[in-house]
Amino acid sequence: MCDHADYTIHGAHHHFGWDRSIPPVQTVAPGTRLHFECLDSSGGQLTPDSKTPDLVNLAFEKINPVTGPIFVEGAEPGDVLKVEIEHFHPSGFGWTANIPGFGLLADQFPDPHLRVWSYDKDSLAPAAFGDMARVPLKPFAGTIGLAPAEAGLHSVVPPRRMGGNLDIRDLAAGTTLYLPVEVSGALFSIGDTHAAQGDGEVCGTAIESPMEVDLKLDLIKGEPLRFPRFTTPGPVTRHLDGKGYEATTGIGPDLMAATRDALSGMIDLIGRQHGLSAEDAYLLCSVCGDLRISEVVDQPNWVVSFYLPRIVFE
Amino acid sequence: MCDHADYTIHGAHHHFGWDRSIPPVQTVAPGTRLHFECLDSSGGQLTPDSKTPDLVNLAFEKINPVTGPIFVEGAEPGDVLKVEIEHFHPSGFGWTANIPGFGLLADQFPDPHLRVWSYDKDSLAPAAFGDMARVPLKPFAGTIGLAPAEAGLHSVVPPRRMGGNLDIRDLAAGTTLYLPVEVSGALFSIGDTHAAQGDGEVCGTAIESPMEVDLKLDLIKGEPLRFPRFTTPGPVTRHLDGKGYEATTGIGPDLMAATRDALSGMIDLIGRQHGLSAEDAYLLCSVCGDLRISEVVDQPNWVVSFYLPRIVFE
Repeated sequence: MCDHADYTIHGAHHHFGWDRSIPPVQTVAPGTRLHFECLDSSGGQLTPDSKTPDLVNLAFEKINPVTGPIFVEGAEPGDVLKVEIEHFHPSGFGWTANIPGFGLLADQFPDPHLRVWSYDKDSLAPAAFGDMARVPLKPFAGTIGLAPAEAGLHSVVPPRRMGGNLDIRDLAAGTTLYLPVEVSGALFSIGDTHAAQGDGEVCGTAIESPMEVDLKLDLIKGEPLRFPRFTTPGPVTRHLDGKGYEATTGIGPDLMAATRDALSGMIDLIGRQHGLSAEDAYLLCSVCGDLRISEVVDQPNWVVSFYLPRIVFE
Repeated sequence: MCDHADYTIHGAHHHFGWDRSIPPVQTVAPGTRLHFECLDSSGGQLTPDSKTPDLVNLAFEKINPVTGPIFVEGAEPGDVLKVEIEHFHPSGFGWTANIPGFGLLADQFPDPHLRVWSYDKDSLAPAAFGDMARVPLKPFAGTIGLAPAEAGLHSVVPPRRMGGNLDIRDLAAGTTLYLPVEVSGALFSIGDTHAAQGDGEVCGTAIESPMEVDLKLDLIKGEPLRFPRFTTPGPVTRHLDGKGYEATTGIGPDLMAATRDALSGMIDLIGRQHGLSAEDAYLLCSVCGDLRISEVVDQPNWVVSFYLPRIVFE
């Protein structure tokens, strides 16, 4: 799929959870370019024909497979793995769901809800959300990380200091990600590719979409790095921001409560303005709306704002 | 100062804190356009000649004066005040400070630190931060709100559901803000004008700058609104995003701790990359860096990212 990669890592070479004892599928020198096949976060359990009731039968032990791990020669604890994310080859199929028990407003949305997307994988034109909205796409990998030092199997769900399920929308083509190495060889894996997501991933899923990824792995010896960092090559929201934003706020002494209030306000607003059901509004917010901390210093009340790009309704 | 305003509210007509018993300085009909003179958040205590030791002598009872209040005819509890923010007339003078006891990292930055800015009020060209960086400007009002229903004097520092010290960077020219009315007449005031600020206002101050503001006050009867919301007329970060971003992250189960970690990572990074002192890096982050919640659903760990626009160093 990629003329310039030194290795192709097929999707069959995936694992569930992080464990330093998982044998590497490939050993590479720093500076190597690789092509990865990534499964979607359901591991193929959901398809273009899936319906909401299929969510009930999801096998959670098969959730969020990552392709890898890759052993990088010379990588040792205290080093930094430099990941140059070069290109995504999207599949054209995606899904977004409210899965009971997951999501920022899990207590308010107890029922499963699934939307299947079909998008043009070549043009990456904005994808139709039923006849309600059109969402600009920006493919990225939700899960990208290294094995932790601590022995044993660690759930793939929470991100950690060596990365993992970061779900950072801007880990897109052109971005360079720096990850702290905790084990010899770093043991890099990637998966959970998304066609679009807003900052927050508020309902718990993005446009989950199988995809192939080209990237380059390099090594920086002995750079202090407590948590992942990244560099974007240019603007990060221009695919969304052309028509401005509707923004709602949450205000109070608890940052999480303010975050939930900002989102609830937006679900109410687009329900009133555009007639979306609360469930669909929740999903739409997750794939294209952004949580920003407007102020976190005016004691004792903080302001979190939820920004929904108006372009999705135009 | 404004040909089109129906009223000019001079800076002498300011008050400290919110109190429904403060007599209105003007009564206006819905649809009225007003021109406000806003003092800076030090109420004139800091000047272009101020130095760091002057921070020690700040009289806190004079902090954050707001110009007003304006009584809007017909406004009643349960209504929404619609504020069309039209234009800012900046002064060219500003200041940014670490004031001991304030700021997201107050525990790590116990010493006062002041930087005075001089910017071109006509061109609004990026403002020099010493010889270290140049910060694109986008004037807005940090404090914009209404009197609360609860009797008595309420500190101006914390924002509340009827607004106040929101410090939302995008309450700039062209934005329409919607505020819940809690008292008859709404009792609108505005102040705390900023020449630039990042999402978060992390050190506790922005480019604090006296400014005049044109806006229009209108009324929406009986719209449900729990917290303020706003509509931006277009993109909100294009003045900053042209060269992309450096981003640092904080990851963990406590959203506030993750927020602090993301900021600390950026202060360390720009110290290493650009030689800024920690104090100057903290101030620079406050005036142009953005806190975004990357994910808040991958239990139990959340990711907060701090985005610093690279354009400030180019």
